[in-house]
Amino acid sequence: MRQSQLFTKTTKDLPADETSKNAQLLIRAGFVHKTMAGSYTFLPLGLRVLRKIEDIVRLKMNELGAQEMTMSMLHPAELWKTTGAWDSVEVLFKIQSRTEREYAIGQSEEEVVTPIIKEYIRSYKNLPFIGYQIHWKFRDELRAKAGIMRGREFLMKDMYTIHENQDAFDTFYEQAKKKYLEIYSEIGLVTKVTEASGGSFSKKISYEFMVLTNAGEDDILYSEKSNYCINKEITELEEGDESPDGSGPLKLGKASEVGNVFDLGTRYQEAFDFSFIDKEGEGKRGVMGCYGIGVSRIMGVIAETLSDENGLVWPASIAPYSIHLIVLGKDKNGEAYKQAEYLYKQLTDNHVEVLFDDRELQAGEKFADSDLIGIPMRVVVSDKSLTLGGVEVKERTGTTSDVVSVDQCIHMFTKAC
Amino acid sequence: MRQSQLFTKTTKDLPADETSKNAQLLIRAGFVHKTMAGSYTFLPLGLRVLRKIEDIVRLKMNELGAQEMTMSMLHPAELWKTTGAWDSVEVLFKIQSRTEREYAIGQSEEEVVTPIIKEYIRSYKNLPFIGYQIHWKFRDELRAKAGIMRGREFLMKDMYTIHENQDAFDTFYEQAKKKYLEIYSEIGLVTKVTEASGGSFSKKISYEFMVLTNAGEDDILYSEKSNYCINKEITELEEGDESPDGSGPLKLGKASEVGNVFDLGTRYQEAFDFSFIDKEGEGKRGVMGCYGIGVSRIMGVIAETLSDENGLVWPASIAPYSIHLIVLGKDKNGEAYKQAEYLYKQLTDNHVEVLFDDRELQAGEKFADSDLIGIPMRVVVSDKSLTLGGVEVKERTGTTSDVVSVDQCIHMFTKAC
Repeated sequence: MRQSQLFTKTTKDLPADETSKNAQLLIRAGFVHKTMAGSYTFLPLGLRVLRKIEDIVRLKMNELGAQEMTMSMLHPAELWKTTGAWDSVEVLFKIQSRTEREYAIGQSEEEVVTPIIKEYIRSYKNLPFIGYQIHWKFRDELRAKAGIMRGREFLMKDMYTIHENQDAFDTFYEQAKKKYLEIYSEIGLVTKVTEASGGSFSKKISYEFMVLTNAGEDDILYSEKSNYCINKEITELEEGDESPDGSGPLKLGKASEVGNVFDLGTRYQEAFDFSFIDKEGEGKRGVMGCYGIGVSRIMGVIAETLSDENGLVWPASIAPYSIHLIVLGKDKNGEAYKQAEYLYKQLTDNHVEVLFDDRELQAGEKFADSDLIGIPMRVVVSDKSLTLGGVEVKERTGTTSDVVSVDQCIHMFTKAC
Repeated sequence: MRQSQLFTKTTKDLPADETSKNAQLLIRAGFVHKTMAGSYTFLPLGLRVLRKIEDIVRLKMNELGAQEMTMSMLHPAELWKTTGAWDSVEVLFKIQSRTEREYAIGQSEEEVVTPIIKEYIRSYKNLPFIGYQIHWKFRDELRAKAGIMRGREFLMKDMYTIHENQDAFDTFYEQAKKKYLEIYSEIGLVTKVTEASGGSFSKKISYEFMVLTNAGEDDILYSEKSNYCINKEITELEEGDESPDGSGPLKLGKASEVGNVFDLGTRYQEAFDFSFIDKEGEGKRGVMGCYGIGVSRIMGVIAETLSDENGLVWPASIAPYSIHLIVLGKDKNGEAYKQAEYLYKQLTDNHVEVLFDDRELQAGEKFADSDLIGIPMRVVVSDKSLTLGGVEVKERTGTTSDVVSVDQCIHMFTKAC
């Protein structure tokens, strides 16, 4: 993509009410536009990041044997009244139609997926059921001050399962947890698996996947020497106490939840009277699970935790482009532009994703924009770099650059990307 | 995909209130699940079709130079009050939050995109602006009886443009119309470009892209010998009248709108006080256009118009799978299963999309399901076919099948797909 064609520009202007660091950076760099608190448009650069996170999550869910669908967002009130959630879930947006019918807008999809499960799952032979979607959800948040980390609308992966019995469920639950950790690791996030309460979903213990960040809404206690980690909400332990696994004193930290897995037991099966016929010919409820990953939230957490004083820092796996190619110089017909155009063509012809800053701006402005946008590799072509023997290659977080020839540069990135 | 693993099954049961042919077929074949009138879940097979239509549309929009984004669906009431549409658009869903703030849920995005345009477009040098999204929209329909052809929630491609002047706009407008016709042709729809009124959007003439179908909601008059076509709403012409272009008598037909393009003039620029600086240094409004394609609607129109008495008939470009591979026989260890498994592996290894009916069912049941699901090519492996020299290959709409060897079959489809 030629930056001269990209309709967004970096900006210093921020909406007066935008106090979250992630949204400030994303707005300044032109990744999102704020429609109102908690509601953002994902602009071309932002949408590319969101799609890449989505693709990583989708691949891993498919590896788990999960089948993708897209559930309706507009739900009749009856579904939510069936489970009692119509009255108990405060964040549920409710609408009245012109004809005074009541609808909910989806904030979770148990009420929609359970009737689907009831439609298709009749026998133990049809189990396990493992269905998921990556879709938008809505929450009537009282305050929405955390940018895209907690929006009134947000993109989530939500998976729902039914297993024949607790054993089968527990086995899958462990596989899912493992797959979650693979996802976060691929995205570039270090997460802790935290015991937590099941919230409004479940009386059982659930697991939350937490990223340490000062912008987090949760307090967690964790051991630095083991994997032990617990949400402070559900424990009487305090900072400095010995970790229950004997690995040393617990540390207190702020964290943001980027995923969760819940054992829902039989609650929804009972509400919708779902049962299947087991091997002995008896009707059984099975065990239901739900598994969330906040896709747009992850983008916010990354912006919040991996940025520096100069701007965003995208991990290569989810960066909007792999390479920020920058040409410097005043002569559009000069050698620097010629070499930059050649490089751009060679790289894009080889499917390397390049943002090409072909704008007629000063070097300082271009470098500042490049740091703000946060593409992992920067390649600069200028009269100076050509004199030195080629182009200057620098990592976004690096402090020095290497000079390599144009052909070496092409070879390097067409191999790597 | 192994059909034994697919969680959906074909069914004869239909929701009592489902009267539309497209939804009846899609529900019976397991492509969609009805949450309520006008609101459907896209199940694994249905989602595959939707994504393929989406991908065709996306590619063509990118060819036009359009930049993709994903706009917020939750809008503050103020944006809609700015244009007066809060009171005038009857199908707009309105919500009140817990704190009594008023929101609209997007049924079109002019109110959201114009502030974005205002943020980034300052000069004629930034023009044209060509932005689009493929995203979900909501309409408070009084009745929703047309299945996924007119849902209360639906997937649309909506593009918005600003051009410097009417000439630049008109030139692009023609390019967009051409690109639209390419899209429909690739999807397998024969469309007519119809003059229509601009509806609530515009006082100017707009164009609608119409598919002749008895399930259509519009009446159009068209010439069978030329491209002349007009929405009956905006003309006093009648069936049998001479076409204004002299190509013979007009015919009356029912049609369904699968796309539209509107010249919006300066209405939204005025409402949001958007202007840019032209070459002479003067502030100008420019010309705005909007361009819709009903992505989920197209899926409904295809189901409605291209199906036959046995079920769905998907064009190859948007079929959920390219090949329906069916194995017959009772012996899971026999030669038919062995050859079918080999074929499945070879084809999928070569990225051919195969639905493999490996279920232990009677031939009649498998064929009936296959016709209902509507994958373009059917490949049957049975003891009988092996005796005849290989596998039986039949088009979904064909009446005879060809016997080809297993290797020929692999060669045929790995080349074609």
